[in-house]
Amino acid sequence: MSILVVGSVALDTVETPFGKETEVLGGSAVYFAAAASLFTDVKLVAVVGTDFPLGELDFLRDRGVDLRGLQVAEGRTFRWSGRYDYDLNVTHTLDTQLNVFADFHPVLPEGYADVSTLFLANIDPTLQYEVRSQVPGARLTMMDTMNFWIQGQRDELTRMIGAVDIVTMNESELRMFAGTSSLIAGARKVRELGPQAVVIKQGEYGAVMFDRHGYFTAPAYPLEEVRDPTGAGDSFAGGFLGYLDQCGEITPKTLRQAIILGSVVASFTVGEFSLRALRDLTPAKIRERYQEFRDFTLVEAI
Amino acid sequence: MSILVVGSVALDTVETPFGKETEVLGGSAVYFAAAASLFTDVKLVAVVGTDFPLGELDFLRDRGVDLRGLQVAEGRTFRWSGRYDYDLNVTHTLDTQLNVFADFHPVLPEGYADVSTLFLANIDPTLQYEVRSQVPGARLTMMDTMNFWIQGQRDELTRMIGAVDIVTMNESELRMFAGTSSLIAGARKVRELGPQAVVIKQGEYGAVMFDRHGYFTAPAYPLEEVRDPTGAGDSFAGGFLGYLDQCGEITPKTLRQAIILGSVVASFTVGEFSLRALRDLTPAKIRERYQEFRDFTLVEAI
Repeated sequence: MSILVVGSVALDTVETPFGKETEVLGGSAVYFAAAASLFTDVKLVAVVGTDFPLGELDFLRDRGVDLRGLQVAEGRTFRWSGRYDYDLNVTHTLDTQLNVFADFHPVLPEGYADVSTLFLANIDPTLQYEVRSQVPGARLTMMDTMNFWIQGQRDELTRMIGAVDIVTMNESELRMFAGTSSLIAGARKVRELGPQAVVIKQGEYGAVMFDRHGYFTAPAYPLEEVRDPTGAGDSFAGGFLGYLDQCGEITPKTLRQAIILGSVVASFTVGEFSLRALRDLTPAKIRERYQEFRDFTLVEAI
Repeated sequence: MSILVVGSVALDTVETPFGKETEVLGGSAVYFAAAASLFTDVKLVAVVGTDFPLGELDFLRDRGVDLRGLQVAEGRTFRWSGRYDYDLNVTHTLDTQLNVFADFHPVLPEGYADVSTLFLANIDPTLQYEVRSQVPGARLTMMDTMNFWIQGQRDELTRMIGAVDIVTMNESELRMFAGTSSLIAGARKVRELGPQAVVIKQGEYGAVMFDRHGYFTAPAYPLEEVRDPTGAGDSFAGGFLGYLDQCGEITPKTLRQAIILGSVVASFTVGEFSLRALRDLTPAKIRERYQEFRDFTLVEAI
């Protein structure tokens, strides 16, 4: 069993009330791979420029992440710069330099098409579709997206949504895509396009999942200090799919466990800047916090 | 066992994306009493003007609510007017006419001081303190407040917080009172003033409780249409305290059950305008939705 992730590798400059870090490791594929590799084998497809410090990815290699799909292209690496104020649920993007990412075309090295799970991180839905088409045999497929594609490439995005098992979005993105304030109505609209499940990210409030079995809700871990929310959603997806990939069966039970595990991993991610927490994360720490999550939602019958 | 609630009885004019209702029954004491009386005996202290249609409260009388503490004063009843847009977590107050509420002084009829539980709804903390002093023997005391008192009567509010077992606030109010964006730090600051527990209301995201046993989180019920959020917090408090009042013991287990029951009752409240849903609510409907709440947070060990 293994997962293919297609997304970005970036150099992020992030400012929060807890500090500022300049041109540190980031990108959706990196956060996802760092999280998923704690559970299963991961293959990564992305692009960096010739300026990228490749040694930064050694910790992924050490965890067995297959980086053959990482293209090094002439030019500068994708850069993103953002600020979070005290309301850490709101991202203020200060600057986006696509650089080599502007001409990115995913190429799947040998063996990549045979994965059991596919995660299409938040990239152009046309590219997502290209990759999806090359991995027809995956047992489980999931995609993320963002307001930029919802507004600019609605038709391509709608086609793409129809081609995956699970869609994940922030709640504001779901509301924008579905044109309703109701998450229930929005999730139904997405599921009518084909997906089995919709996983809605709610930042400091956790995540909810809608599928044919109904509704499941997971709180966020109560952190005294959220130092850097960057990568929360991608590491959530990494924990979620990483766990499911190595499950014998995908059932209501394992889907719920996966949501909690995604929340657990994301809660570590946001406690430190960049990939710092994910580098040091271990299965034992994850299991311990998973139990805490169960404890603080547990309520007995009346 | 019985509860004393001190708060407002109002005529509300409310506009939401689902409609507008003019001068309908409202007020913190009414929402609280309607909810709590589904669980235990309730005694109410409040004031209305001579213009108030007293027959509107017959449903409370039918549920055994003791209305001897409802003063009828010369003048007009308290009126509140507000609007909610699609973000139903944000209240836009359009008009507040205190009227007879401006000169309100709670008077406790015979037997009122012997209650086992006291709820001080969102009124002037000086009045809350007057009432608190007259009910020294209550097993459990809880108070609500709002930004108006946090900004205008901080000292009185702080003294009052030190005199109750449980404080409930909206998350924005807690952040304002404690001067921190962290709910953990904010709850700790409140508990350092004396209360055993802090219950933080998060609107469509549910509620969280901090006490010496740690942290407990309850989601909100996923409603497709929230027609009128007015009274959500007070009916939450009514379900919460109503259940606890008739529990033999207040334990971590019963506190958690009470949080879920409060959320259940509030979820009915916001599904209809004014008191409409609370009038028709039954213990059987509450038990059924309680079980749903347990179901959609249930997750197995890994």
